[in-house]
Amino acid sequence: MYKYRIGVVGAMGAVGTEMLATLEKSTLPIAEVIPLDVKENEGKTVSFRGQPLKIKTAEKGAFKGIDIALFSAGETASLHLSPIAREEGAVVIDNSNAFRMEPWVPLVVPEVNPEAAKAHKGLIANPNCSTIQMLVALKPLHDRYKIKRIVVATYQAVSGTGLLAIEELNKQVEAYILGKELPRSVYPHQIAFNALPHIDSFLENGYTKEEMKMFNETRKILDDPEIMVSPTAVRIPVFRCHSEAINIETEKPLPEIAEIVQILDNAPGVKVIDDVQNREYPMPVYLKGTDKVYVGRIRKDFTVPHGLNLWVVADNLRKGAALNAVQIAELLVEKNWLKGE
Amino acid sequence: MYKYRIGVVGAMGAVGTEMLATLEKSTLPIAEVIPLDVKENEGKTVSFRGQPLKIKTAEKGAFKGIDIALFSAGETASLHLSPIAREEGAVVIDNSNAFRMEPWVPLVVPEVNPEAAKAHKGLIANPNCSTIQMLVALKPLHDRYKIKRIVVATYQAVSGTGLLAIEELNKQVEAYILGKELPRSVYPHQIAFNALPHIDSFLENGYTKEEMKMFNETRKILDDPEIMVSPTAVRIPVFRCHSEAINIETEKPLPEIAEIVQILDNAPGVKVIDDVQNREYPMPVYLKGTDKVYVGRIRKDFTVPHGLNLWVVADNLRKGAALNAVQIAELLVEKNWLKGE
Repeated sequence: MYKYRIGVVGAMGAVGTEMLATLEKSTLPIAEVIPLDVKENEGKTVSFRGQPLKIKTAEKGAFKGIDIALFSAGETASLHLSPIAREEGAVVIDNSNAFRMEPWVPLVVPEVNPEAAKAHKGLIANPNCSTIQMLVALKPLHDRYKIKRIVVATYQAVSGTGLLAIEELNKQVEAYILGKELPRSVYPHQIAFNALPHIDSFLENGYTKEEMKMFNETRKILDDPEIMVSPTAVRIPVFRCHSEAINIETEKPLPEIAEIVQILDNAPGVKVIDDVQNREYPMPVYLKGTDKVYVGRIRKDFTVPHGLNLWVVADNLRKGAALNAVQIAELLVEKNWLKGE
Repeated sequence: MYKYRIGVVGAMGAVGTEMLATLEKSTLPIAEVIPLDVKENEGKTVSFRGQPLKIKTAEKGAFKGIDIALFSAGETASLHLSPIAREEGAVVIDNSNAFRMEPWVPLVVPEVNPEAAKAHKGLIANPNCSTIQMLVALKPLHDRYKIKRIVVATYQAVSGTGLLAIEELNKQVEAYILGKELPRSVYPHQIAFNALPHIDSFLENGYTKEEMKMFNETRKILDDPEIMVSPTAVRIPVFRCHSEAINIETEKPLPEIAEIVQILDNAPGVKVIDDVQNREYPMPVYLKGTDKVYVGRIRKDFTVPHGLNLWVVADNLRKGAALNAVQIAELLVEKNWLKGE
């Protein structure tokens, strides 16, 4: 059996670390994992299945012999290095925003639109974290009842910004306890004990890029140019796992809640946690390191003919990033789609 | 000029403390403030305009001579003591949920429905904190464009639960920094670094009482039995000020954003903070102790014919509770409505 050489670009970052952890548990036949990062980190080591691996510099020549390169080093790195990686023979699975909306690039959530991956041209984009978890939860309902409109408010964790943001929240909380001034460098405002209605930069229409990603990526992934998404993206002082308050309106009538619960719980990648009388619902602090998309607070929205409210939580570094990328790699190998079209 | 004797029931609580602070700055002609609380607190002192005031026990006889009694000691205390207060001649302004939906009780936000206060029968209810700030922001738009439906997700501060909840968040954060187990007693789950989609108890329809308050109180305060509210109420690790992601659909077409900003900024009790290119939008941590309802992230919702998204923040202990109650008292005095009907 052929075994694959997997490159991880940005291996020392928040998502890269999770990529290595996810690859450790993957069923992919792996010959070797090659951790790549910026020159400053060359020679440092990361751990993979108990072995130390030395970081190599992500640069021209570094991708020779690599079958699949998982990129999570930011948009600039992806723009610069992904053409090199492809030229050197690697299939790139890119976690950045650089190529997601390019018409020639498949944007894939394996539970939602696996077939889209087949026609890749050496690069597949991993969607935005907030979009991934929303669509894994909504796809089974969209298939059956056709969602017309989504109104979503997010409660996003600082780890979505990276390791420095995790450190910033930690430092701010520590300074608060010590009665010191709160240090601030990553976010434009204090994040501890605050809510920031600002993720990524602002666009002309008043929305943030993060919000418009949820609109545009949803349409591309569902291959539905009519579905509407009205988002508000907010950062809150949570380390890990994004939460979303999601309101949907469907074209067809929705069944009873019990049936909706069953549909969701049987859907790939979804787990329902919804026993409110026993105070059970998904919460970020308890779902760190998990792989599914968790859905709770499932209740009819009685203000429209066919409406539903849901509360959706997932680990933004796992299903929202690293795990989804590794699942795309697994899909390509399993279906023998690595060569693309 | 007649000067009023004002009772504050629950004077040592989170809202009671703010009521005293708000009364200090009030234009009400005050003869005396009488702080009332549970028997265990009798004889303890609170401060009012630099003078220590001794706590009296809130019980039969304690309301004689009091003109206006501001209640914020919970539903049970209001149910038990408000009839006594009224019998002893006080007009009760009640911050609890006990009487809000009683047909004979006016439910008043002075900027929204001041006239409703006129016909009181010795008791006026203060609405839920989340409802107050939402309606102060939306009333000027409802008047002009008739809001048909609101989808709202809240980001609520722990101070809404009371002093013990503030202490719990403090203790959990301290334990986290010290690497100790996080103590937990007020909330069913950890609140530090978490998001709890659970405020007040759950009802048969899957919504919480907090969520249904936003639906029912909105209809009563706006005197509009057709307006729809689809809420998700969430507690986040913020000490003070509730935030809300609000989506509205109106019957009439909305004007340009610049005109909406002007309408909101000229409305009583509202201040617009919306200069996103300079990273200015309302945020809870910077609005503690303020009196207005702050609106930002104002942008058209292009997924419906006439839609708008807003981000609304207000101090839940001030405008959401103590200030609104004191404003009702000021309204009664100013309009000479204290005797009611």
